[in-house]
Amino acid sequence: MVSNMPSVLREDHDAVAVLTLNRPAARNSLSRAMLDALQATLDGIAAEDGIRCVVVAAEGPAFSAGHDLKEIVAHQADADGGKAFFEDAMAACGRVMQSVVGLPQPVVAAVEGVATAAGCQLAASCDLVVASESAKFCTPGVDIGLFCTTPGVALARAVPRKAAMEMLLLGEMIPAAEAHRMGLVNRVVPPGQALPQAMDLARRIAARSGAALRLGKRGFNQQAALPLPEAYAAAGAVMVQNLLAEDAAEGIGAFLGKRAPEWRHR
Amino acid sequence: MVSNMPSVLREDHDAVAVLTLNRPAARNSLSRAMLDALQATLDGIAAEDGIRCVVVAAEGPAFSAGHDLKEIVAHQADADGGKAFFEDAMAACGRVMQSVVGLPQPVVAAVEGVATAAGCQLAASCDLVVASESAKFCTPGVDIGLFCTTPGVALARAVPRKAAMEMLLLGEMIPAAEAHRMGLVNRVVPPGQALPQAMDLARRIAARSGAALRLGKRGFNQQAALPLPEAYAAAGAVMVQNLLAEDAAEGIGAFLGKRAPEWRHR
Amino acid sequence: MVSNMPSVLREDHDAVAVLTLNRPAARNSLSRAMLDALQATLDGIAAEDGIRCVVVAAEGPAFSAGHDLKEIVAHQADADGGKAFFEDAMAACGRVMQSVVGLPQPVVAAVEGVATAAGCQLAASCDLVVASESAKFCTPGVDIGLFCTTPGVALARAVPRKAAMEMLLLGEMIPAAEAHRMGLVNRVVPPGQALPQAMDLARRIAARSGAALRLGKRGFNQQAALPLPEAYAAAGAVMVQNLLAEDAAEGIGAFLGKRAPEWRHR
Repeated sequence: MVSNMPSVLREDHDAVAVLTLNRPAARNSLSRAMLDALQATLDGIAAEDGIRCVVVAAEGPAFSAGHDLKEIVAHQADADGGKAFFEDAMAACGRVMQSVVGLPQPVVAAVEGVATAAGCQLAASCDLVVASESAKFCTPGVDIGLFCTTPGVALARAVPRKAAMEMLLLGEMIPAAEAHRMGLVNRVVPPGQALPQAMDLARRIAARSGAALRLGKRGFNQQAALPLPEAYAAAGAVMVQNLLAEDAAEGIGAFLGKRAPEWRHR
Repeated sequence: MVSNMPSVLREDHDAVAVLTLNRPAARNSLSRAMLDALQATLDGIAAEDGIRCVVVAAEGPAFSAGHDLKEIVAHQADADGGKAFFEDAMAACGRVMQSVVGLPQPVVAAVEGVATAAGCQLAASCDLVVASESAKFCTPGVDIGLFCTTPGVALARAVPRKAAMEMLLLGEMIPAAEAHRMGLVNRVVPPGQALPQAMDLARRIAARSGAALRLGKRGFNQQAALPLPEAYAAAGAVMVQNLLAEDAAEGIGAFLGKRAPEWRHR
Repeated sequence: MVSNMPSVLREDHDAVAVLTLNRPAARNSLSRAMLDALQATLDGIAAEDGIRCVVVAAEGPAFSAGHDLKEIVAHQADADGGKAFFEDAMAACGRVMQSVVGLPQPVVAAVEGVATAAGCQLAASCDLVVASESAKFCTPGVDIGLFCTTPGVALARAVPRKAAMEMLLLGEMIPAAEAHRMGLVNRVVPPGQALPQAMDLARRIAARSGAALRLGKRGFNQQAALPLPEAYAAAGAVMVQNLLAEDAAEGIGAFLGKRAPEWRHR
């Protein structure tokens, strides 16, 4: 299945949905229309139990250059100086990023080129990141008087505090190997291999029970935000629900019986 | 002193209590009885001022394989499908893990073999982890339809977000060196050296004032969960209490007098 | 401009204020007077829009040895055993550390020698740390019966949990390279280069819009302490405010026009 939406392509490979940012001429900048296309695509996938993992990739040399500066400049001429548009764009961007985190399915970013500002934020918001050796990560807002405050939300939750501050205060390009050292990237692969290797991880994830993946991803994010006693209470409840699900019985039975499990995904 | 409890041995070396998971034939899986034995042992130690550090080690090639799957399967035949047992087991497991974190004494894990699922959670819950080069860490619940949600509570507090998600989503064996890079392991030592090296750290810790260690461990965990101003208020109050304690006067006096301190441990 | 304050020197280089801890004979220990001098200096800078970055350096072989033990011992003879003094000193120290974090301007530590206890806390509280290869970091309170609980507040927010616990429980000297691996240090530079390299970073930061830096640093710390939805709401509001500021219009215009921006810093 290939989506008709111009700026975001979707192609399903069995239970893996591959989303491709498809405005290479604009370095895949996150225009308002691009954000709407991403949101609609994510909302659709969230409701599809047949999809068990999502890959976010990009067409062209840049993963994403972040917000569309020309669009921002155009709205500076609005009667309110752009305020209404900026508020709407920030809200839309925040929704997309939270939809990636909140998506029932795990999301793997495949970063081959440069991920800048909100483009870096999109990668950082994914559950896993596979980056090519030629990939770079950057939050260079300070260079244009526009501190990357919203990308910092995703960065602060992915890398240590001082690494995030260094990226935000200096705006330098961070090579994939350094991003891996910081915890922003899970796997560094040879040039050209970001998408194939992300697909490999996604296929391995999608081979598991969809019910367990959904419970697990949501449960992880839920408990991670709680104090320890509440985290254990919440995680324990998820675990009991998971233990009572069909696929846990099947999985445990298959393991003890030394056979391959046949998931019902529920 | 050697405990009579079959599944958890306790042997004290001066002020260091060494707990040994002792169901090697069951790969030290955390059966309900094993959890009770651990809980009783930890509760006992918590009240013993003479113990100033605890080491958690394991008999046999596995550190711990996590929950006992055969026990889980047996309870699937209960009238409620196992619900009551699962709730009880998850609550017991969460109590044990929180007792490790909340134990007045620092706890050092000595991991020589594989620490899987709740076994990985037990290691991650300890204050420090010494791992042999042959040790491996793994949360493979996804392979059996049972996402390692409760182990994720301990993982999320020990390693960066994307590293935790990678372990939970892929379920791969993580070698000790990689676990060290992620922050899950403090020291990687040659094969066979996990316990001796953990004992060395434990003896060095236990040579300090028990009163300072108790105040410090509890104070650390308390402040780490608070916003910055409240964290400083709480930590400052602990520091004042520590400054007024006998051992701080002794320690500071000994330091300035260039002599060895003689702790009263209060 | 050179301050008259004896224990903390201030020298401005254009928009960079360099603070130098200046009690080398006392290993720059944070006496009550030193804390007051630091507080007054930070309070002054906070109100100066002309300063856009701060460097904290030290005179002599030690960055800072932490609290002044002789002062603490002297107050043990107080009628209350030192309680009032200890409370005052801890409150003053906590205020200084929170003033570094809360300072509108980014703060870069230049650590050439040993940063111990509250001295390590001061470095850890800075936004960025440049350390010489000969720098060392240490929280050795356990050696004198005085667990480094308040330094642990800054450590817990800079490095992974087990790394912080290892520093606090063992009190060992951590070389700069290891501190870098843990996330406590941003850059390790050759001996003698901590201050010049910190100045280089500070000048690059100070070349940016002061308005964007102020919004960005405060916005980062604000959102980092919030749950994800609230973090995005707060960061989005900061971003809109930043987009409507003069320097963002100038910066975006300059970028699209391929010219250098001329900041108004507002």
